[in-house]
Amino acid sequence: MSTISETDVLIVGAGPAGLIAAWWMAKCGIRLRVIDKDPNELLHGRADGMRPRTVEILDSMGSRMMETITQESFPMLSSHNWMRDEDDNIQRVERLDMYEDHRKVLATPFHSQALSQGRIERIIQDAILDLTNGSVVVERGVAALGLEYDQSLEQDHSAYPIAVTIHKQKQNQNQTEKVKAKYLIGCDGARSWLRRELGYKTEGSNTNTIWVALDVYPITDYPDVRKPSSIQTPKGTMLMIPREKGLLRIYVPMGIEGQDAERDTVTLEQASAYVKPLFKPYKFDFERCNWWSAYSLGQRHSERNRHDGNRMFLAGDSVHNNSPLIGLGLNVSVHDAWNLGWKIAMAFSCPAGVDRNAILSTYEAERLPIAKTLVHYDRNWTSLFNKALVEPAVFIQRYIEFRNFSDGYRWNYPDSRLINRATSKQELASNLVVGESFTHARVSMHADGQTYWTCSRLRADGRFNIILLAGDWDDAQQKERVQTFCQKLEEEKDGTSLLYTRYPYPWKSSSSFYNYDKSNCDRGRPHSLINILTIHTGGDETPLLEFPTAVRGPYHYLYGWDYSRILVDMARPYDRYADGKAYEAWGVDRRKGAVVVLRPDMHIGWLGDLEDFDALEGYFETFLGAAWKE
Amino acid sequence: MSTISETDVLIVGAGPAGLIAAWWMAKCGIRLRVIDKDPNELLHGRADGMRPRTVEILDSMGSRMMETITQESFPMLSSHNWMRDEDDNIQRVERLDMYEDHRKVLATPFHSQALSQGRIERIIQDAILDLTNGSVVVERGVAALGLEYDQSLEQDHSAYPIAVTIHKQKQNQNQTEKVKAKYLIGCDGARSWLRRELGYKTEGSNTNTIWVALDVYPITDYPDVRKPSSIQTPKGTMLMIPREKGLLRIYVPMGIEGQDAERDTVTLEQASAYVKPLFKPYKFDFERCNWWSAYSLGQRHSERNRHDGNRMFLAGDSVHNNSPLIGLGLNVSVHDAWNLGWKIAMAFSCPAGVDRNAILSTYEAERLPIAKTLVHYDRNWTSLFNKALVEPAVFIQRYIEFRNFSDGYRWNYPDSRLINRATSKQELASNLVVGESFTHARVSMHADGQTYWTCSRLRADGRFNIILLAGDWDDAQQKERVQTFCQKLEEEKDGTSLLYTRYPYPWKSSSSFYNYDKSNCDRGRPHSLINILTIHTGGDETPLLEFPTAVRGPYHYLYGWDYSRILVDMARPYDRYADGKAYEAWGVDRRKGAVVVLRPDMHIGWLGDLEDFDALEGYFETFLGAAWKE
Repeated sequence: MSTISETDVLIVGAGPAGLIAAWWMAKCGIRLRVIDKDPNELLHGRADGMRPRTVEILDSMGSRMMETITQESFPMLSSHNWMRDEDDNIQRVERLDMYEDHRKVLATPFHSQALSQGRIERIIQDAILDLTNGSVVVERGVAALGLEYDQSLEQDHSAYPIAVTIHKQKQNQNQTEKVKAKYLIGCDGARSWLRRELGYKTEGSNTNTIWVALDVYPITDYPDVRKPSSIQTPKGTMLMIPREKGLLRIYVPMGIEGQDAERDTVTLEQASAYVKPLFKPYKFDFERCNWWSAYSLGQRHSERNRHDGNRMFLAGDSVHNNSPLIGLGLNVSVHDAWNLGWKIAMAFSCPAGVDRNAILSTYEAERLPIAKTLVHYDRNWTSLFNKALVEPAVFIQRYIEFRNFSDGYRWNYPDSRLINRATSKQELASNLVVGESFTHARVSMHADGQTYWTCSRLRADGRFNIILLAGDWDDAQQKERVQTFCQKLEEEKDGTSLLYTRYPYPWKSSSSFYNYDKSNCDRGRPHSLINILTIHTGGDETPLLEFPTAVRGPYHYLYGWDYSRILVDMARPYDRYADGKAYEAWGVDRRKGAVVVLRPDMHIGWLGDLEDFDALEGYFETFLGAAWKE
Repeated sequence: MSTISETDVLIVGAGPAGLIAAWWMAKCGIRLRVIDKDPNELLHGRADGMRPRTVEILDSMGSRMMETITQESFPMLSSHNWMRDEDDNIQRVERLDMYEDHRKVLATPFHSQALSQGRIERIIQDAILDLTNGSVVVERGVAALGLEYDQSLEQDHSAYPIAVTIHKQKQNQNQTEKVKAKYLIGCDGARSWLRRELGYKTEGSNTNTIWVALDVYPITDYPDVRKPSSIQTPKGTMLMIPREKGLLRIYVPMGIEGQDAERDTVTLEQASAYVKPLFKPYKFDFERCNWWSAYSLGQRHSERNRHDGNRMFLAGDSVHNNSPLIGLGLNVSVHDAWNLGWKIAMAFSCPAGVDRNAILSTYEAERLPIAKTLVHYDRNWTSLFNKALVEPAVFIQRYIEFRNFSDGYRWNYPDSRLINRATSKQELASNLVVGESFTHARVSMHADGQTYWTCSRLRADGRFNIILLAGDWDDAQQKERVQTFCQKLEEEKDGTSLLYTRYPYPWKSSSSFYNYDKSNCDRGRPHSLINILTIHTGGDETPLLEFPTAVRGPYHYLYGWDYSRILVDMARPYDRYADGKAYEAWGVDRRKGAVVVLRPDMHIGWLGDLEDFDALEGYFETFLGAAWKE
């Protein structure tokens, strides 16, 4: 029996990448389906953690995901490295604190967090259920079989150029269905069906050395069992990551040379018998192993992650496949989908004047180089792990070298319509780099003194944020500059103002059950694709209503003014992190300020002076086009 | 139609006190019913906030209550005071930061939080649902009508000396039911049915001045609308408390003298017309008023809160009734029930050797003086508010004077079997005062370096906690002292050891759906009524297994050791609050330490030296009796 149906976005694969892409569609109220050939939800094993910027992304998605993660996950705070002496006994030789002095300026409130992939997937699924009132559920046990693509429909926005034949096994009945879609995202892993359908080659290589990963409840007197640690072994360096609920993830080189087929011959008994003596002189045992897997290290990336027609995309492991040792697969996958999701939502929902191809093409330009860097770094990293007697200092040096990349805070996207260095003034903010994601700081709300990390005021809802670093509002000259800038934001040109009416918010904006802002009553869906958040350096004595209306936000006939949109960078006696050093962290002049544009994924698209309003307007016009007529 | 039924604990009144009492029963798996004559859940109005220690209590109850509160409530950070000049215009004259320099040692991670009573009640109810798998629900629209008490059964633990006739209106049918119970708690408000049944008189007085409380969405240019503030008016001092979701609570003296009956003649129009001009020269208006109430200020307390037979108790407004201005009614009510709940649970569940009457009598000894102090303070405080031209400085002085009382951190309970000053050595810890609740600090876990507030490691589950401030473990002499102390904890006397077997944990321990400890796997229900938590001042390099087994906690055949029970007071680069100053905050010698016993409500019951094991043992024996035979 075969049926034909339609959806707007079809996502193949419900791992972290597929779920993040699905979340964006759910958030923007776009019709979607997510299928996964695995009939069961992942419960144990696979990836084991998130880097700071990944945690930041999940936090920005709301639905209390961050609270669940904070509750459950294990922060990676230090690394302890052990060497092996002539008697085959291990000794700790090095301890590395992963975080520098937090009494200094911080770039993020988030740590790297260890948590099993299954829980991370469950948390994202819960957020999707929350946003869609339970209506979007992953269809499991459903495989994609065939792809038809009608290129003639490619540029017709209302058409469904894609048809995917899917197959579901249900109560001993095989059902096939043809799903027509406007967009197709393949998040279907290393052996991606979509990548094969599109004929993209992969580049890379596998080593033949077999490693084993295990999740166990250790019974041991090994002193660093609850700290991330590494131990030299005769076959390479073993890595241990403590996890939630007392679990320990172990990565151990087995020293067996083999092909894919031979991996299957490794048994848990073998792996267990091999790993236990490696802790000598400490006893190491376990009764319970939650999950284990044998694999050979290898790195591959796809030659492309985007089909020319900008209707079909790959994300996650289907684009890059790396060793688990580096702990970046899940992270880079999440970021792929994070980058892609809002762009598809824009292409799908924004009116005709928007340059859809320009927006969607940036996905490849921005993410494919990251996939390549990942492969490069991983090769570099795993070759160290595969060697027998590498000094911990070498690992540490390598770790530090790649740290900005691996923590996800220094991914610099190239020039495009969405990243405009040409009209930006990078010199205004040494630490807010155009192309990179925003650096967060703890500031306080002008009206009530509550303290917040900037990220918690920048929720992911598809909007662009103008961060108005207004400088010293108490300085008369600066105040005038701010007022002039604000006037231009509101000023109508050909009947629309940049801030309010030029680009109306295009989505219904699914709202979360948990979206409860203590500083504000519910003001309904946003009106504009462009939001503004102001952070000044004056005192907090100025009455809120003396600020320009542009930065204060709209007046509501029932609820009055919005008090949550003006922040101040000042030290607060009740919060050690609100230390009045945000501008210092950003490298911005406390008196003169700057204007920063954040894309919906929080990457900086443009940076300029308060006088550079024309360039700011131009930034948006290059990809959003002229004013949208509603 | 009348039926007869049995329950173990019957709670009349489902306000904050009734719900907290119900939570303890739910937590300890004791059969209970909660009835409330109001057919509807409270949605708006009444109390509007929690003091720090109240927030700490809710946090210790688990079930993610604290996360919800943090998300929703408005922290009280400062107070802004306005006077009125000759032209009737108001001017800000004073600003008081409610929190001192947090870079100094902190006593608590919690602020005072403004949140409406209805939300607080809902959050506690959700926790009860969580603990009981949805089986304990408040029975609404059910009133208590008659009480029978059989004094001859009073001392028979298995008997039901109480019978309450309850009446429920249901689909136009009136049903009565006779509920037999072992314990009865009246949390039924100022006009308490149970208090009248028991014939307890109230002492106190009402002023006749009418005040109005309003919850509005303000539309105003009054600069301090999002800060707690006060304004002098011709009839007294008006108080404004910003709240969740942009709400503002206003307390305004109307200057009308009247009796209870005349309150009803005040209309919202009148109150609204009166309050708006008081903000002159600022405009003040509102379209939406969520709730309002007219009342006369007054203070009363019941002569008793406990029936001699220790089977019937009063808590909350049924014991003390005060003005809303002081913002303490809900807080003191929560603390009443907090104090009573675990005592009833112990009396109900512990074996015969336990001196039930001694335990239950302490409720009156500990809480009735608090009710009296509340009335005294409130009288003092509201008399200031009722005067026309009080200087803000006077309020501030009075606020500071009563602050330790109102924040709930300095309620010193008198000597009893549960508070043993006679065998304690107060000089060992200048800031951990026997009889008061514990002062919290941020310390880190020895095994993994994760940082925690001490309160987050001390969940409310009915257990007593021995806090072993082990001092400098790296000092050989001190190490020996700790080892000797630990040996005694484990040593058997007449076949039982204090730590493990003397007093087995008596409850099934309902566990929360949300109880997910990132540092530990689930080890099931506790084994002993006595728990130990160690905080030392040595470094974190000592392997965990070098600590005595008593402080490490039990070994589990599947999960190995428990890594979460030893904490260290040291500065951590990744956490500005983990500053290594906990011992300093407690006033304890970093080298020599001390031993502190916390009751299940976190009040300090005993304090001594590591050599004072006999006194420690004696502390427990005076109320728990000799070893419990299972």
